[in-house]
Amino acid sequence: MNTKTRSDVTIIGLGLMGRALVDTLLQTGHSTTVWNRTADKAEELITRGALRADSVDRAVIASPVTLLCVSDYPSLHTVLDPVGEQLDGRLLVNLTSGDSAQAREMARWAEKRGARYLDGAIMAVPPTIGTPEAVILLSGSKAAFEAQRSILDALGTATYLGEDHGLSSLYDVAGLSVMWGVLNAWLQGVALLSTAGVDAASFTPFAAQVAQGTVGWLEDYAGQVDGGSYPANDATLTTHAGGMAHLIEESERLGVNAELPKLFKTLVDRAITDGQAEASYPALITQFSPESTTS
Amino acid sequence: MNTKTRSDVTIIGLGLMGRALVDTLLQTGHSTTVWNRTADKAEELITRGALRADSVDRAVIASPVTLLCVSDYPSLHTVLDPVGEQLDGRLLVNLTSGDSAQAREMARWAEKRGARYLDGAIMAVPPTIGTPEAVILLSGSKAAFEAQRSILDALGTATYLGEDHGLSSLYDVAGLSVMWGVLNAWLQGVALLSTAGVDAASFTPFAAQVAQGTVGWLEDYAGQVDGGSYPANDATLTTHAGGMAHLIEESERLGVNAELPKLFKTLVDRAITDGQAEASYPALITQFSPESTTS
Repeated sequence: MNTKTRSDVTIIGLGLMGRALVDTLLQTGHSTTVWNRTADKAEELITRGALRADSVDRAVIASPVTLLCVSDYPSLHTVLDPVGEQLDGRLLVNLTSGDSAQAREMARWAEKRGARYLDGAIMAVPPTIGTPEAVILLSGSKAAFEAQRSILDALGTATYLGEDHGLSSLYDVAGLSVMWGVLNAWLQGVALLSTAGVDAASFTPFAAQVAQGTVGWLEDYAGQVDGGSYPANDATLTTHAGGMAHLIEESERLGVNAELPKLFKTLVDRAITDGQAEASYPALITQFSPESTTS
Repeated sequence: MNTKTRSDVTIIGLGLMGRALVDTLLQTGHSTTVWNRTADKAEELITRGALRADSVDRAVIASPVTLLCVSDYPSLHTVLDPVGEQLDGRLLVNLTSGDSAQAREMARWAEKRGARYLDGAIMAVPPTIGTPEAVILLSGSKAAFEAQRSILDALGTATYLGEDHGLSSLYDVAGLSVMWGVLNAWLQGVALLSTAGVDAASFTPFAAQVAQGTVGWLEDYAGQVDGGSYPANDATLTTHAGGMAHLIEESERLGVNAELPKLFKTLVDRAITDGQAEASYPALITQFSPESTTS
């Protein structure tokens, strides 16, 4: 194991996101080694102070920690497989997009080679890297996270999720699901109101208020899911189904796409068929997660 | 026209919601006349100070304003059609659930009989009536709204939407759409994280943060919809489609229902087919509202 290093951090993969990471690290005073399969992507970064590694093995031994930001897991193996012996004692922080199974497999691969491993997911677009808006989800060794915290904090809001390496990609797609849920439901409303000549800007403060109100119920609803008990203190699934029927009818009458409310109602109708007519909304978890049980 | 009245407000329809309205009005010092098709529902309210009308026509002439809270529009016509001649000069505030076409038709019916008319929608459950949490949407005559504002404000957060009587039911279903959008996307995430042993309470603060972040983009996105121009300053529909594919694959691999993310991706794929691959997310409005045009 070679413990002699010449920089604080190495970045492998200099796409849009990788370059944004390097930029931020240089700006925050971290000596940074870079490597990319096509070397020309490094040129501009070198002029601004990044150190060039002329091979992957030199890249990974240059720093105690290497951030990996390539296009996918096959590319990651193409890059790392030949240098497995150089990874002993290093920390790999893998920011490559993939699923939770790929993250866990990669963790086992790295640990077999004596490397510590954090799996990460960047919930941000490249221009926001280095600002608090850029949420960097990380899972794996907590000690490794703490040891490299200053580097991770420089990149955005570094958020440690737990020891299971699959967590960062799970939280990532779950967060995207929430994002798309808000956006699509808002578009449904925008389309409905547009039929009455109300523009999106006029409708949106109301939509935002409703969304924030709903977010305010989630903590209680989470308690219902975790407890497996769904007392309808607010409204039963039967009541929700009635409201959904109104939404579908109004949408169809006005020529607005009703696929989204129809899917909502399909899920609720199934739960009602399963005996949940008098339960509160989060009883619907059984329609999302087949292994869930209800009391 | 009989202008002699003996109470501040009349309520017709004493279901759960109607009784909550009467309770609140009595508690806030409004003399209140009540009528219900089955008279026994009034008994308890009478003991607490409500005034009983023994017929619909006596109910509507008892007060300058009558709140209508019956089960549906056919019931509403059954109640009101025989007393059309007594409505001249009165204000009707219709809180009965229905669609925007029914509201507009009812407004024409009432105005023909010399009544002023506000259509309303209550975005609340009965126990919250009288608190700021109870949002009461109202549309129609602004002068009528202002004239009876003290009564409407007593019931909750009375929100005036505009002269078009269809607006309150449109905002109502649009708001419900936003609510279900948040709840279902949250359940998708809860189900995904449950496969890694993460409980709903642990996932929910993250989901809430993402939802609130997304709500923060809506104002800009509304400007894109209203302007018909969708510059992808954050992420293109192609990028979103890639993320959705990850969400679908992860869900299916883990046995989590993928219908919701599949519908999201279907909508995005259609927009890409329509030439919007490089546009930002709100370009999807064209998939919800067939009459929308994009520049």
